[in-house]
Amino acid sequence: MTQPFPFSAIVGQDAMKRAMLLTAVDPGIGGVLVFGDRGTGKSTAVRALAALLPPITVVEGSPTNAARPEDQAEWETVTGALREVPTPVVDLPLGATEDRVVGALDIERALSRGEKAFEPGLLARANRGYLYIDEVNLLEDHVVDLLLDVAQSGRNVIEREGLSVRHDARFVLVGSGNPEEGELRPQLLDRFGLSVEVASPTDIEERIEVIRRRVAYEQNTQAFLERWRTEDGKVRDAILAARRLLPEVETPDAALRDCAELCLALGSDGLRGELTLQRAGRALAAFEGARVVDRDHLRRVAPMALSHRLRRDPLDEAGSSARVARTVDDVFA
Amino acid sequence: MTQPFPFSAIVGQDAMKRAMLLTAVDPGIGGVLVFGDRGTGKSTAVRALAALLPPITVVEGSPTNAARPEDQAEWETVTGALREVPTPVVDLPLGATEDRVVGALDIERALSRGEKAFEPGLLARANRGYLYIDEVNLLEDHVVDLLLDVAQSGRNVIEREGLSVRHDARFVLVGSGNPEEGELRPQLLDRFGLSVEVASPTDIEERIEVIRRRVAYEQNTQAFLERWRTEDGKVRDAILAARRLLPEVETPDAALRDCAELCLALGSDGLRGELTLQRAGRALAAFEGARVVDRDHLRRVAPMALSHRLRRDPLDEAGSSARVARTVDDVFA
Amino acid sequence: MTQPFPFSAIVGQDAMKRAMLLTAVDPGIGGVLVFGDRGTGKSTAVRALAALLPPITVVEGSPTNAARPEDQAEWETVTGALREVPTPVVDLPLGATEDRVVGALDIERALSRGEKAFEPGLLARANRGYLYIDEVNLLEDHVVDLLLDVAQSGRNVIEREGLSVRHDARFVLVGSGNPEEGELRPQLLDRFGLSVEVASPTDIEERIEVIRRRVAYEQNTQAFLERWRTEDGKVRDAILAARRLLPEVETPDAALRDCAELCLALGSDGLRGELTLQRAGRALAAFEGARVVDRDHLRRVAPMALSHRLRRDPLDEAGSSARVARTVDDVFA
Amino acid sequence: MTQPFPFSAIVGQDAMKRAMLLTAVDPGIGGVLVFGDRGTGKSTAVRALAALLPPITVVEGSPTNAARPEDQAEWETVTGALREVPTPVVDLPLGATEDRVVGALDIERALSRGEKAFEPGLLARANRGYLYIDEVNLLEDHVVDLLLDVAQSGRNVIEREGLSVRHDARFVLVGSGNPEEGELRPQLLDRFGLSVEVASPTDIEERIEVIRRRVAYEQNTQAFLERWRTEDGKVRDAILAARRLLPEVETPDAALRDCAELCLALGSDGLRGELTLQRAGRALAAFEGARVVDRDHLRRVAPMALSHRLRRDPLDEAGSSARVARTVDDVFA
Amino acid sequence: MTQPFPFSAIVGQDAMKRAMLLTAVDPGIGGVLVFGDRGTGKSTAVRALAALLPPITVVEGSPTNAARPEDQAEWETVTGALREVPTPVVDLPLGATEDRVVGALDIERALSRGEKAFEPGLLARANRGYLYIDEVNLLEDHVVDLLLDVAQSGRNVIEREGLSVRHDARFVLVGSGNPEEGELRPQLLDRFGLSVEVASPTDIEERIEVIRRRVAYEQNTQAFLERWRTEDGKVRDAILAARRLLPEVETPDAALRDCAELCLALGSDGLRGELTLQRAGRALAAFEGARVVDRDHLRRVAPMALSHRLRRDPLDEAGSSARVARTVDDVFA
Amino acid sequence: MTQPFPFSAIVGQDAMKRAMLLTAVDPGIGGVLVFGDRGTGKSTAVRALAALLPPITVVEGSPTNAARPEDQAEWETVTGALREVPTPVVDLPLGATEDRVVGALDIERALSRGEKAFEPGLLARANRGYLYIDEVNLLEDHVVDLLLDVAQSGRNVIEREGLSVRHDARFVLVGSGNPEEGELRPQLLDRFGLSVEVASPTDIEERIEVIRRRVAYEQNTQAFLERWRTEDGKVRDAILAARRLLPEVETPDAALRDCAELCLALGSDGLRGELTLQRAGRALAAFEGARVVDRDHLRRVAPMALSHRLRRDPLDEAGSSARVARTVDDVFA
Repeated sequence: MTQPFPFSAIVGQDAMKRAMLLTAVDPGIGGVLVFGDRGTGKSTAVRALAALLPPITVVEGSPTNAARPEDQAEWETVTGALREVPTPVVDLPLGATEDRVVGALDIERALSRGEKAFEPGLLARANRGYLYIDEVNLLEDHVVDLLLDVAQSGRNVIEREGLSVRHDARFVLVGSGNPEEGELRPQLLDRFGLSVEVASPTDIEERIEVIRRRVAYEQNTQAFLERWRTEDGKVRDAILAARRLLPEVETPDAALRDCAELCLALGSDGLRGELTLQRAGRALAAFEGARVVDRDHLRRVAPMALSHRLRRDPLDEAGSSARVARTVDDVFA
Repeated sequence: MTQPFPFSAIVGQDAMKRAMLLTAVDPGIGGVLVFGDRGTGKSTAVRALAALLPPITVVEGSPTNAARPEDQAEWETVTGALREVPTPVVDLPLGATEDRVVGALDIERALSRGEKAFEPGLLARANRGYLYIDEVNLLEDHVVDLLLDVAQSGRNVIEREGLSVRHDARFVLVGSGNPEEGELRPQLLDRFGLSVEVASPTDIEERIEVIRRRVAYEQNTQAFLERWRTEDGKVRDAILAARRLLPEVETPDAALRDCAELCLALGSDGLRGELTLQRAGRALAAFEGARVVDRDHLRRVAPMALSHRLRRDPLDEAGSSARVARTVDDVFA
Repeated sequence: MTQPFPFSAIVGQDAMKRAMLLTAVDPGIGGVLVFGDRGTGKSTAVRALAALLPPITVVEGSPTNAARPEDQAEWETVTGALREVPTPVVDLPLGATEDRVVGALDIERALSRGEKAFEPGLLARANRGYLYIDEVNLLEDHVVDLLLDVAQSGRNVIEREGLSVRHDARFVLVGSGNPEEGELRPQLLDRFGLSVEVASPTDIEERIEVIRRRVAYEQNTQAFLERWRTEDGKVRDAILAARRLLPEVETPDAALRDCAELCLALGSDGLRGELTLQRAGRALAAFEGARVVDRDHLRRVAPMALSHRLRRDPLDEAGSSARVARTVDDVFA
Repeated sequence: MTQPFPFSAIVGQDAMKRAMLLTAVDPGIGGVLVFGDRGTGKSTAVRALAALLPPITVVEGSPTNAARPEDQAEWETVTGALREVPTPVVDLPLGATEDRVVGALDIERALSRGEKAFEPGLLARANRGYLYIDEVNLLEDHVVDLLLDVAQSGRNVIEREGLSVRHDARFVLVGSGNPEEGELRPQLLDRFGLSVEVASPTDIEERIEVIRRRVAYEQNTQAFLERWRTEDGKVRDAILAARRLLPEVETPDAALRDCAELCLALGSDGLRGELTLQRAGRALAAFEGARVVDRDHLRRVAPMALSHRLRRDPLDEAGSSARVARTVDDVFA
Repeated sequence: MTQPFPFSAIVGQDAMKRAMLLTAVDPGIGGVLVFGDRGTGKSTAVRALAALLPPITVVEGSPTNAARPEDQAEWETVTGALREVPTPVVDLPLGATEDRVVGALDIERALSRGEKAFEPGLLARANRGYLYIDEVNLLEDHVVDLLLDVAQSGRNVIEREGLSVRHDARFVLVGSGNPEEGELRPQLLDRFGLSVEVASPTDIEERIEVIRRRVAYEQNTQAFLERWRTEDGKVRDAILAARRLLPEVETPDAALRDCAELCLALGSDGLRGELTLQRAGRALAAFEGARVVDRDHLRRVAPMALSHRLRRDPLDEAGSSARVARTVDDVFA
Repeated sequence: MTQPFPFSAIVGQDAMKRAMLLTAVDPGIGGVLVFGDRGTGKSTAVRALAALLPPITVVEGSPTNAARPEDQAEWETVTGALREVPTPVVDLPLGATEDRVVGALDIERALSRGEKAFEPGLLARANRGYLYIDEVNLLEDHVVDLLLDVAQSGRNVIEREGLSVRHDARFVLVGSGNPEEGELRPQLLDRFGLSVEVASPTDIEERIEVIRRRVAYEQNTQAFLERWRTEDGKVRDAILAARRLLPEVETPDAALRDCAELCLALGSDGLRGELTLQRAGRALAAFEGARVVDRDHLRRVAPMALSHRLRRDPLDEAGSSARVARTVDDVFA
């Protein structure tokens, strides 16, 4: 019920904000993994993005936020009119059980009417929106596996408790993680589209500005929100414009070759690197109003698209983002 | 049913008492973690604080202690009149199951009427009050995570057993811990607002005074309570005055800069250090009737706001409170 | 159904017998922990004490042995007359489930009438009496924690299975332990009031006397009980006289100072040492008909009140009881 | 609901494609294990194969896809007409419970009618088709055991929950695995018919072609599918022709001797190597329209039939496929 | 249903047979632990003893084998006439659940009539007889604890599942163990009354005799049983005579002193050693028709009463039985 | 439903085939353990034996295959006529739950009629036949224990879920194991009657013959079965003749001495070695029409009766079968 901090009022943290905006333009880019120390505003940013996103049209009451009656799952019984609702941003609370995440047998109907009906879970509610997991490294591997699987396929397939049910579950997964608390397996890392690192500002003026805005927000929330409303509106308009432009943005062969050469040079496994790089580049182009992906677009998204796909190099002390940036310089030279 | 020991009759332990009083002035400071050997009166102090706090107004019978009908959760069916009750102080008993903590399906109604109703738990009962956990290090990490999550967001979100329910749960978490029995993870430490250490007095006269008061309390409880009633009343009045003054207390830019410099000098991760330091300083100012936070306020709350956010320094043998105090001296010199 | 061995017929084991008698005079001293090899008669002594204790007055049929109707828990439905019953001595059987210890949902009523009623457990039955746990080190830590918690607060608070119930549970916990089978954590040790060590006699005449009495008891139980009835009656009378005298026994400041100096000299953590020492000294004074606690009382109870609160001293090979006795000699010199 | 990528449009990966085609000709060859880095298109290929396979005739509504009424399991109650359906390709979703895999008690009927009926699971649905498991190394060993057992015997035998039921379950198991994440036990490896390794292309032009086709497919799926429809049709026709020819293909004694000599030379355990090699050779012959198995057929299927049955040779650094190929050269020289 | 091998036809194994006979004379001696290699006839001996024991008188149908109506537990509803039945020998089958061992809620009555009735378990059925556990080291410690607890107290106290029930459970526990498979804790060992070791005969004629008798028994069981009937009858008569004589057998002070000196010399912990030695000596005296326990009786039962109560002596390579025998020689010299 | 491979058509593997035939002559010999690499035809042989065995007479519909009404368990309600059925060969499927193995409460009747009836499991169905476990080392130890226990006693005793039921369960347990996957404990090994090792043939002609027969069987099953029908018939007749002769076969004292000397020389623990050796020798004699067991019979069955009962000898590199054979040569020299 508390109103989130405005997206535009977040001091610094440009990479994180850009990554989130790109997925708002093209959710097909895949999830975002935000690494960083505690207290660096990761969850604040997600909640801020939620408040910023444009509304979506849904069949009123559809548990999967279906856009049209023909998109509803066959087990949905609602037949409401179309209406606009905010883009769903679903929080995976600590302690959420697997049945509430993927959906489960509706015990109430099972007990009272002896029927085996499906009760949708958080994945249904997140359809067409965002699913936020704080401290993704605290989740058990098999749940992360499951979430990434659904996020990637866009379908939630439930085969348990005698249920055999499926429904659309297209959402962007945003996970925050603390590198000090257990790592994610490379296989899982690879399945996130983008990754960014956040850190507390080391510049004292920037730190003071962060606290000042926070104190202002806490002491008089309404006034603070009012002050940033226009700024947030501009970002929202830019997202909408980019979405319209996106299908027309082209990736010329030269850009494809750039993607491939960069990934070969970095030695990233598989082809997900190239595909994500190309897609993020297109989204950035669209966000900036360009109709053709160029080297500059790729250069700017390369670290967030590739740095979590590198193999460890014990002889190279630079962080993975720095290694990507350096390789971009070499390859694009 | 036994009447608690009077807060004012506690011998020494000034840091612990101050930390508790500050959260009574501004619950937004966050939880208090009390470290110390066994037998140092940690739980006595919490129970004493409970008896001291001013009453709150609630909708009679509201399981979440709602202040007004419009604050009640949508699943609450009670519609009572407003009345005053003591500030709730809920004890998390050993062996409390997760369902009783966060709330759960009401089995009785489920079985008898086939309805899926929510039965609120201890988090609901603690709303607008205190939740006390003795030996927080004995709780499983995921429960502590969950409690801190709720304490910080002020909302209890339940997604389990087919339930999808939420309600306000604004409370101050007070945890006692024994440093000899397993440590808390840094991530958890950071999410407590304040921390203090308590120890048995080493001065023999003080020890004798502690026993003397205890024996007096045990042998004639009523007479002992009577003797301390006035003293406790003064503290209660001071809390109420501070609460009224708090919104007017200002944190000038110089104080913000002091907070930031202190945290940078201490190398504390993230920005929660600065934010808590500023907030605790304001509460102390309010408690002492000041309208502006100054260096002296910050100096006195810095150890309890920051000492649990330091990284271990194997070369520095001083305790973390001493390190904070020394750095305050350096920075504020 | 078998009649217990007479308390007075136990050969030797003076410390154990004295500790048990002191808790019979003042149950507020807290539990007794009896350490010793197998076969040293620990459980025989507890069962003997049970048969010796004076009866208590209860509301007939009250599951919590309430002394008066106004002491009954709010969920009790019985309204019987007052009558005398033996002091309850409840045995915690191996394999007792937690629900039977703390009480639980009454499944029978839940199933047959759909009501959520409370069915009290062993803690209720032990109210106003003794709870005996053989081999306390075989219990899981969290159950011991729970038992000590209830024993200390005198209240059993149940928050599980949708129940939220409480009732009086004032009892003396007697635990026997074998030092060879896993130790108790210091935190648990500290929460027992007294501790004693028992050992098989090494004097051959004493050993023979033990076997002779045992054989006599086994071959003709009635005759043996008859022979010791008078002796047991004297002890019972002494307990009753001591209970009457107790509120009048004073602890002069010199004695308080002795307690504090002794604990400081021993370096025992916290203040529970002093408090228990003072209380056990008062009980001993009362048992011996004295109205003032003196050094001799303290000297005799110090080992059982303090020896389980010492830190290990690897340079001191003496047992902890011997260390306490030696320190008493130094401090009281 | 999304249409799969066309089988023929997959760039390279010839071994994987051939192995899948051979099992389409003769499902009796057994499962296919596809090893490879992430992002190499393993699941894309399986889904592509699914869309390519010719339809099968079934009793309409039969949960086991029975071809004729007399093939239905005795617990099937459906009595529909015959009709054509696509070859079933069943995906084992992450988190599928064992009861949904093998089938289980039909809880709905058990609760509502008190009958103990069988509710078939994924193994029934996969009968006469394919069962795909992504990341087979993430499954617990006992489930893999169970799947291979059923795949090999062609019968699903359920003895659990008081059920004693069986049904046909003839399917080709396709498992993908990542060699970096835990290995399969040799016993499990041996029970897969064929194995192939896939890798990201290292040739830059090939990489670019992969991305180009992927981008084309994503940006205009219908047009892309249209472009490859003819190519896919040719493959489908070849499979059907090979199935008709298969019973007539002969394995002369010389070929049997070749199989045995090859396996002896490779030191593969047991006789499954020879049997699979002979069977895969026959399927390849049939696919290419030959009526007699010759050395060239065996040479080409030997690596996929044998490389997962070799013992590790620490002195031989070549991969197992290379070792098979080299031995083929020696033996067939 | 197969008829057991005759007790008298067991070749050798004198210690095991004597230990079992002594418990038949005085069940109060406690359980017997039989250590030995596999295939040494441990379970054959127990089954043979079962067939040899004299019958007991019971209330017909009493689930606890009550001797008289007044001995029945309060929850027993049977009111049959008295009749003779064979001494119960209950086998604890592998996989027996704890509820079937100690008894449990009668689910049938709970479900059909909503009553909370007790359904007795194997401990009830074993009352007044024998309970045999093959491979006692395979049982979980807590179950062995529980069984020994009941065996020693003669009462089964059930506090679980909302039940609070008790009944007589006086039985001799016979456990067989293989020293190669995990040891029993000293605490458990001490609670068995007697222990014996068995081994395969090393004398070839004795081995042949064992096989010859076994083959004879297998090829014509009736004839074999007939051949040994008289011998078994003599043993049964001797047991009955010993039971009648037992209350009159005296243990003079000299014998008590012998017991104590022997245990002191062996350094056995506690006093259970002396008590068991004295009791086993009395049973042996009675079995042999003597009215006074003498040194020879003690000498012969000392190894089985004491050898499992010794501390390990790493410098003494003799087995524990040999150490006991040697010490007896020294002490009784 | 597929027809098994003919027993006589199995190439080589003489020891395995002989061991199985001996248990067909005298099931009292006990189970057979077949060790060997994967793909050596272990399960093929068991299924072949199943098809070869002569039929048995049963009470029609009896769940325990009772031979006569008086052999039925007391809980059986069927009263059918006698009729002939094939010897039962029950396969223990992977994933079979313990309740389906030993039998369990009949949930259907419990729920619908509130009765506590027994539903027999696989052990009942295997009575008077064979129980086959593929990869016995994959079963949990306690299940193997349980199976061997029942196999040896011939009775299934169920004490669980409030059931107290028993029935005949005389069957031959055949377990296959792979020595590379975890070993069986010596205690379990000893309880199998016979053990044999199988290996892939190393002779190339034999390997080719194996494949040739397999291909022939797969390509035209009916014709292949026809070709081997006569051969299988001869074996069946030989089994029936041997069963008739068995009771008359004698084991002279010299043979008993041979058995004992052999086992002493081998140092096998216990006496099960001698007993099994004698019994297997008698079965072999009967199978070959001899009325007296001689050295040659013993010599040929000694390896399979004894090799799994040897202690490991680290100085002797020969396999255990070879060690038995060598010792036979020495002892019988």
